[in-house]
Amino acid sequence: MTDASGPPIITLLTDFGLQDAYVGAMKGAALGVNPHLQVIDISHSISPQAIRQACFIAQSAWPYFPPHAVHVAVVDPGVGTERRAIAIQTDRGTFVGPDNGVLSSALPDDERPHQARAIAVPANSRVVSITNARYLLGSISATFHGRDVFAPAAAHLASGVAIEELGEAVPTLTAFPPFRARRAPDGTWTGQVVCIDRFGNLITDCRNDGVGNVDFVIEVLGRAIPAARTYAEANGLAAIAGSTGYIEVVLSNGSAAAEFGAGIGTPVVLRPAQGRRYDLAP
Amino acid sequence: MTDASGPPIITLLTDFGLQDAYVGAMKGAALGVNPHLQVIDISHSISPQAIRQACFIAQSAWPYFPPHAVHVAVVDPGVGTERRAIAIQTDRGTFVGPDNGVLSSALPDDERPHQARAIAVPANSRVVSITNARYLLGSISATFHGRDVFAPAAAHLASGVAIEELGEAVPTLTAFPPFRARRAPDGTWTGQVVCIDRFGNLITDCRNDGVGNVDFVIEVLGRAIPAARTYAEANGLAAIAGSTGYIEVVLSNGSAAAEFGAGIGTPVVLRPAQGRRYDLAP
Amino acid sequence: MTDASGPPIITLLTDFGLQDAYVGAMKGAALGVNPHLQVIDISHSISPQAIRQACFIAQSAWPYFPPHAVHVAVVDPGVGTERRAIAIQTDRGTFVGPDNGVLSSALPDDERPHQARAIAVPANSRVVSITNARYLLGSISATFHGRDVFAPAAAHLASGVAIEELGEAVPTLTAFPPFRARRAPDGTWTGQVVCIDRFGNLITDCRNDGVGNVDFVIEVLGRAIPAARTYAEANGLAAIAGSTGYIEVVLSNGSAAAEFGAGIGTPVVLRPAQGRRYDLAP
Repeated sequence: MTDASGPPIITLLTDFGLQDAYVGAMKGAALGVNPHLQVIDISHSISPQAIRQACFIAQSAWPYFPPHAVHVAVVDPGVGTERRAIAIQTDRGTFVGPDNGVLSSALPDDERPHQARAIAVPANSRVVSITNARYLLGSISATFHGRDVFAPAAAHLASGVAIEELGEAVPTLTAFPPFRARRAPDGTWTGQVVCIDRFGNLITDCRNDGVGNVDFVIEVLGRAIPAARTYAEANGLAAIAGSTGYIEVVLSNGSAAAEFGAGIGTPVVLRPAQGRRYDLAP
Repeated sequence: MTDASGPPIITLLTDFGLQDAYVGAMKGAALGVNPHLQVIDISHSISPQAIRQACFIAQSAWPYFPPHAVHVAVVDPGVGTERRAIAIQTDRGTFVGPDNGVLSSALPDDERPHQARAIAVPANSRVVSITNARYLLGSISATFHGRDVFAPAAAHLASGVAIEELGEAVPTLTAFPPFRARRAPDGTWTGQVVCIDRFGNLITDCRNDGVGNVDFVIEVLGRAIPAARTYAEANGLAAIAGSTGYIEVVLSNGSAAAEFGAGIGTPVVLRPAQGRRYDLAP
Repeated sequence: MTDASGPPIITLLTDFGLQDAYVGAMKGAALGVNPHLQVIDISHSISPQAIRQACFIAQSAWPYFPPHAVHVAVVDPGVGTERRAIAIQTDRGTFVGPDNGVLSSALPDDERPHQARAIAVPANSRVVSITNARYLLGSISATFHGRDVFAPAAAHLASGVAIEELGEAVPTLTAFPPFRARRAPDGTWTGQVVCIDRFGNLITDCRNDGVGNVDFVIEVLGRAIPAARTYAEANGLAAIAGSTGYIEVVLSNGSAAAEFGAGIGTPVVLRPAQGRRYDLAP
């Protein structure tokens, strides 16, 4: 919603890639509603239909935008079916897309379930089902709601249209659990790789702040990786408290993913090390 | 041309890729003319010199922008030769680039020829040859008119310079036919694949509205593909009335292009099916 | 710095790629400082940690932007170490990033050293070490200063904050030599390939204006390549005075890089040819 803090901003996160007209058509549909919009690309390189990957990218980028931004996330294998189109408004931003769990990345960890499921809308958020044709393109295709529904709806929201105008409030939304390794009583964390970035770094679901002021070793496919503080300090393989809030395994001057042949879902175990090496406290 | 409906917008469609400085230099040259411009990327991933691919992307994105936008399309194997630099103004937008046929994507189907050739400028459009050095960079290279000619000319047009200021009106422009399969007397359409998108969907030149309220089967490389309404409803291979206005062949949870080994130009035949399945009417 | 010539602009040049959240988070951090910013992508496809490649892209794009733009370049293998974060202000723009040499691409050739080293800040520039926490994110990670330091610092500079506010002036900066082949007394230039663009063109460090009005042949891996004026005029392999200011070797309808198996660093020799062919003078 436009507020005193600035001009309208919408961001786009999709699996549409950059080779086709899909992203351009979304931008046109948004600017057709309001040519004053700033349209910001987050990423269009989500793997096709990779909903959980979109969650990780979303939670790593959205929090840095001003709260009047409207964030569109379209990774939408269910387009054209009965899955709902929703908008969520919180004090951290407004979020628009299919109700398939990606938008729950906008919620704080403690408002999210332990397993993927429909949850009640949190007390401090509002969720509507986007249905008001006045705020959509004149003709809605069965296969491209990014252009026909989500971009124009987001453009209207960013331009000051109240969320209630878009459709009826709904009591539930689909939500995923936070990315979070499991902690055993002995202080060991059992988790997995949740993202492989461009550099081949293996980002795990072991949170930096879960580790705290404790030295640790992380095990990946049978190898124990020591901790380091920066990429430059890594000497070969190292585990680093990453910028996304999670421990990541890196290889200096190389790709840890290629070194391990690791992928999304590769299991990791993080355990206290003998002898303190680095202080990872925030 | 800037109008009451909003701030100046230019869009960019090129085969320059994103790894080099070419796109950045074009943006700089445009913002150097007018730093208030919104510069919107449509795609820079057109295959090198693939003029017809650029046509398909252009026609799938341009119509969604507001009519005061200025669209730049630079896929330009003839740069530095005698090919003209032109600007076209219509009531749907303004279009800037080499006169090699890509800009004819801005014209309605009924203003376009049956075969690629020079056509007379349609009555409701104006075309000029861009020659006025006042609106170009001070030094024009022989190999990069995107930066030196088209970006600054578009920036001036978007900022309110009248199209006649850029150069003399010209009576013809190079035009391609619309993407359109041929219809036989028995109701069969003979066409081809004209675009393969990121998902491996095979977009054909069989128009959705050509099919109308008729159930159909599409044949690709000897296999008959049944129709479906959405990606989610496809069970294996299916033909869908796509969001670009054309029938596309998709594979649920996979790439139809990889399944068939199909490419641009792969022939397709669309024929009425026995037994109605879906209503594809708009 | 914002001036009468337009709204605030920052440009981004990184090796972060487009698949991850890194670029989106930088944009968010910048817009969080000032939502009126124009945030322009130059490229995010620099090869990981390829500092010299970033130099070439920077010098080929930055000069085309208006001088009030603030340019961020983050190819930063030393992030989290003692390497400084700096900002450089010149009459051609303001430049922000790690002090690893990339930012020296903003300096004219005659202010740059013959070998990579720390140089005194040129008389007409100001350089500061970015340290004032007031202009950075509240929490600074050890591994992502693009988001935590450079984007917010650039956003403040673009919004009118004086460069001295960001930190203390420093007397030196790290600088690379210009890309420039060596000239022998006989008029022969000995150089190398410094960039391979999307089209497979081999861009050398032999400057167009070094060649002047002289016909020449360039030798690559034992083959002598004749000159041509445009891509269209090339008949097979040809050497062209490129748009970046350097001689490039191209293959009509193909990739010269693939034809030669050439890469960054492949040596080239340019020598006067017998018989004048083209006039390359600017």
